[in-house]
Amino acid sequence: MDQKGVLAVISGFSGAGKGTLVKGLLNAYPQQYALSISATTRAPRVGEEHGREYFFVSKERFEQMIAGDALIEYASYVGNYYGTPKGYVAEQMGAGKDVILEIEVQGALKVKERFPEALLVFVTPPDAPELEKRLRGRGTETEEAIRSRLKTAAGEAVFMDRYDYILVNGQLNACIQELHSLIQTQHRQARLNRGLIEKMSRGLSGIAQ
Amino acid sequence: MDQKGVLAVISGFSGAGKGTLVKGLLNAYPQQYALSISATTRAPRVGEEHGREYFFVSKERFEQMIAGDALIEYASYVGNYYGTPKGYVAEQMGAGKDVILEIEVQGALKVKERFPEALLVFVTPPDAPELEKRLRGRGTETEEAIRSRLKTAAGEAVFMDRYDYILVNGQLNACIQELHSLIQTQHRQARLNRGLIEKMSRGLSGIAQ
Repeated sequence: MDQKGVLAVISGFSGAGKGTLVKGLLNAYPQQYALSISATTRAPRVGEEHGREYFFVSKERFEQMIAGDALIEYASYVGNYYGTPKGYVAEQMGAGKDVILEIEVQGALKVKERFPEALLVFVTPPDAPELEKRLRGRGTETEEAIRSRLKTAAGEAVFMDRYDYILVNGQLNACIQELHSLIQTQHRQARLNRGLIEKMSRGLSGIAQ
Repeated sequence: MDQKGVLAVISGFSGAGKGTLVKGLLNAYPQQYALSISATTRAPRVGEEHGREYFFVSKERFEQMIAGDALIEYASYVGNYYGTPKGYVAEQMGAGKDVILEIEVQGALKVKERFPEALLVFVTPPDAPELEKRLRGRGTETEEAIRSRLKTAAGEAVFMDRYDYILVNGQLNACIQELHSLIQTQHRQARLNRGLIEKMSRGLSGIAQ
């Protein structure tokens, strides 16, 4: 079959567990998925590696990438650029891998505008009190930080209906399987099977002469 | 969650095994699916039962249904009407069941025009020679009938790209599971989860005050 990979954009509330979900998916099916790595102009933190957490590049290099249309989307945040390099994503998809892009809401919507065939998935806990519980359960953040995250989440919820699919992360393993099914079924889309369609069409025309 | 059922429209070449596929799906998950039953004005054949193979109705009754907009789609074929009654489909979907509509190409495209949210699935064997082999393997049809079916298939192949998904029926049980996954993942569509989205939105606004 003429399968090319699927571009799956995953967003979700901070505390919804989307990082763990994406890690779980990649660990469970390492041959099937590739994680898109962002480029940024911010300095690496201790323990961060170029090409693992981020591609760390200079401001000049980043602006060259913008000018050369080498980014799927980018944004500026607290004085630094963050963006998704196009090359790696295209290469992996061409090789038949499904590329996972874990990205916040505004970036996700920009990707969808440019690539309507991208699969947008929003990850949420079952309800708002559960999100608050998970944020507090981390035990690492100040009350102020938690309130700020909840406020951001309230702002993001408004955009949930712009996503293709909503995934409720109640139980992690079940959610990994659901995400996997969701992405894999996309391979059956007619637009990804044009070669098969043409082959059937030609084959049947030949036989039915 | 605010799940309503999904309307899944299944078409495919004669000989692709879509009847067996649909039967297998309904047998495997009887609680999840309901099969839509067509209405027709043709006379019942021996062994056919009203409400099982078809709803057998008079021409007058059928035309009342047309006039009263009680059919999702209908067509006239060799002097008889065939159509899909709306009531049963709506009732089953409202009860959360996914309704399977096994229907030919022209009818399927009419359904999609009227209900863009319907899931259109086209079932095909892996290639054209395999379709011919399956048709001949039945051993019940004349050469003329087989050639006529292949000709019809060649005509239908042109419309495959109007479907949402293409399902290759190579191995029956694997194909049943694929069809099941495909339909079940549709329940995660944002448009079927408006209640959840609103609940999260309201809940987070409340907490983040």
